[in-house]
Amino acid sequence: MTDERMARMGLAASHDSGDAGLAKLVRESGAAEVWEYLRSGRGQSGLAARAAAVDLDRVARRTAAVGARFVIPGDDEWPPGVADLAWGEPVGGFGGEPFGLWVIGPADLGALGAGIAMVGSRAGTAYGEHVAQDLAAGVAEQGYPVISGGAYGIDSAAHRGAIAVSGRTVAVMAGGLAQLYPPGNEPLLKAVVEHGGVVSEFPPDTPPSRSRFLIRNRLIAALAAATVVVEAAVRSGAQNTVSWALSLSRPVLAVPGPVTSAMSVTPHRLIRNGEATLVTGVDDVLAAVRPLDPGIPDYNRAQPSLFDALTPEQKVIQEALPSRRSVSVDELAALTGQPVLPVMAALGQLERLGLVTRTPDGYWRVRPGLERVKADKR
Amino acid sequence: MTDERMARMGLAASHDSGDAGLAKLVRESGAAEVWEYLRSGRGQSGLAARAAAVDLDRVARRTAAVGARFVIPGDDEWPPGVADLAWGEPVGGFGGEPFGLWVIGPADLGALGAGIAMVGSRAGTAYGEHVAQDLAAGVAEQGYPVISGGAYGIDSAAHRGAIAVSGRTVAVMAGGLAQLYPPGNEPLLKAVVEHGGVVSEFPPDTPPSRSRFLIRNRLIAALAAATVVVEAAVRSGAQNTVSWALSLSRPVLAVPGPVTSAMSVTPHRLIRNGEATLVTGVDDVLAAVRPLDPGIPDYNRAQPSLFDALTPEQKVIQEALPSRRSVSVDELAALTGQPVLPVMAALGQLERLGLVTRTPDGYWRVRPGLERVKADKR
Repeated sequence: MTDERMARMGLAASHDSGDAGLAKLVRESGAAEVWEYLRSGRGQSGLAARAAAVDLDRVARRTAAVGARFVIPGDDEWPPGVADLAWGEPVGGFGGEPFGLWVIGPADLGALGAGIAMVGSRAGTAYGEHVAQDLAAGVAEQGYPVISGGAYGIDSAAHRGAIAVSGRTVAVMAGGLAQLYPPGNEPLLKAVVEHGGVVSEFPPDTPPSRSRFLIRNRLIAALAAATVVVEAAVRSGAQNTVSWALSLSRPVLAVPGPVTSAMSVTPHRLIRNGEATLVTGVDDVLAAVRPLDPGIPDYNRAQPSLFDALTPEQKVIQEALPSRRSVSVDELAALTGQPVLPVMAALGQLERLGLVTRTPDGYWRVRPGLERVKADKR
Repeated sequence: MTDERMARMGLAASHDSGDAGLAKLVRESGAAEVWEYLRSGRGQSGLAARAAAVDLDRVARRTAAVGARFVIPGDDEWPPGVADLAWGEPVGGFGGEPFGLWVIGPADLGALGAGIAMVGSRAGTAYGEHVAQDLAAGVAEQGYPVISGGAYGIDSAAHRGAIAVSGRTVAVMAGGLAQLYPPGNEPLLKAVVEHGGVVSEFPPDTPPSRSRFLIRNRLIAALAAATVVVEAAVRSGAQNTVSWALSLSRPVLAVPGPVTSAMSVTPHRLIRNGEATLVTGVDDVLAAVRPLDPGIPDYNRAQPSLFDALTPEQKVIQEALPSRRSVSVDELAALTGQPVLPVMAALGQLERLGLVTRTPDGYWRVRPGLERVKADKR
């Protein structure tokens, strides 16, 4: 029987991750069993044929040759936030956890803690790059790793900001790590490797593709406690990462800019639609990821109690949660008459506030010990 | 017995408007009665003494001399939106309707319809003035009068925008109309008079003062269907006008800008705190004042029903409204556990959507005919 690690490497080599159904099968049956089943020639013909064609030794040799390690669930280095992809709503047909992660660089993804994702246009303006670099430097100085892609523009500005303050930064790639993409950005990406790491869920020699960018984006959102959209035009890949963050109930933040700038159209739309919170600086970003920190700016002046400090959306969800049992997101959405994504967003916020917890089966409940407080409030 | 118009002129000449208590007394007893009472030497000594000293004929002569007319409640020209000041929450100790309005210019305040207030800093940036002028031109072209003050910066840019498209624009002054303030802005203010009018609730020779600016601001908010904050620094008079708009349950809109600009600090804070809706152009402003217009941009893609299109805050209020009786804002705030100002804001939005109405005594109820729809939703 192939061991779990090699089985996961084999699965990643035979089938792009981002297939929620296959991820679920692996989660429930174990990678080794699924891999052996496919290699036995049974199962879905196309996938089984691709599995049969995988040269596992070669993938392992290439992994070593590019200086990468292959990290899988259960390893100390497996980043905890990625587990949420198991229950996050699929986006654009993709979903589920990666089979494993190829990593190059000194950063220990398990010990790094959740980061701040900074996303935006490859064609950011000087203003956007300035703000991205500034915010990245600020959060990196506070110990949060920056998470982004490897593109020019906002991605690169974010990495530069973290590197400038000797902070940690991670680039998540849409192709294998044998050739960092785009090739012209290799000098910066090499610096990223030194100051953190590059990560991919695709085997070393996989070329990037449109679908792999979409699959990759969910990993950026999953590695981050919050996603900041700095600049993005009306149609932008940043919107896809935002959808992933919302699907994971993680806060989405957006930087405003001149209304005359095409690059601020998406941040403005996200703010206007209530999908993102407007942020103007590092303090605003930190306020979103550690809302109970006494050092955060006091936007609402008086916050006599935690309950009083909740937004109307959060209050509706908190009030709707039964005190004695756990409920699904769908049930909460039905109870409150609200769409699923805002309910997930509010649950994520309440979880970070320590008011609700997630059960292992993906249900939500009032945090143990707070049921009485909640009952008193009624 | 002095007639109502002269009595109101006398009251305005003896006591700055903005005194909610005196406004209520006048509303309930009639201006003539209050005026006669004060002139009789009875009543509050300071006010009675000032009333006794008023030379009514002189005020009337000065009114005519500066080319102004004095408009009072009941006149066709009395702007309907001003009546809401009777129930609006006082702001900074001021409140209540004006005793009357001095007006110079061709605009008929009664026929003009509610306008769009554009407020902001005297020291707006080139960006802010550009946006203010652009938005003002856009709303004026759609037939909405622009409402602003007479200051340099954003106020002036807004007037220029309306004038540029031969739209209507109104400057509300914090002093009497004998000397338009600031004197250096007189060329523009004369153009404002030609394209709409200048308005003051203070007798012609009253100098502007700090408190009169605060009193004046409520009139800007009351003459407008929505208030747009274009640029304002961290401390700004624009915040005061915003408070008035919220107190009147009228929408507050704010224009984002670069996070590096001190002049965008207040708009960003208002958006972040949920007090203002982010607007990027004329369509956004129009969407706030005519939300059922089919021509508005479709931010939420699918809006299968009016109820589905409500924001979570609006839904909470709509759901909390009893179907068979009217309730006060305070009761609604208690029912929903929300602060009074957001409740008022949501009520105003629901009123514009045609879902709720205000009773003559300032209470709120489900719009007649919709009780059944509401009951069905439950």
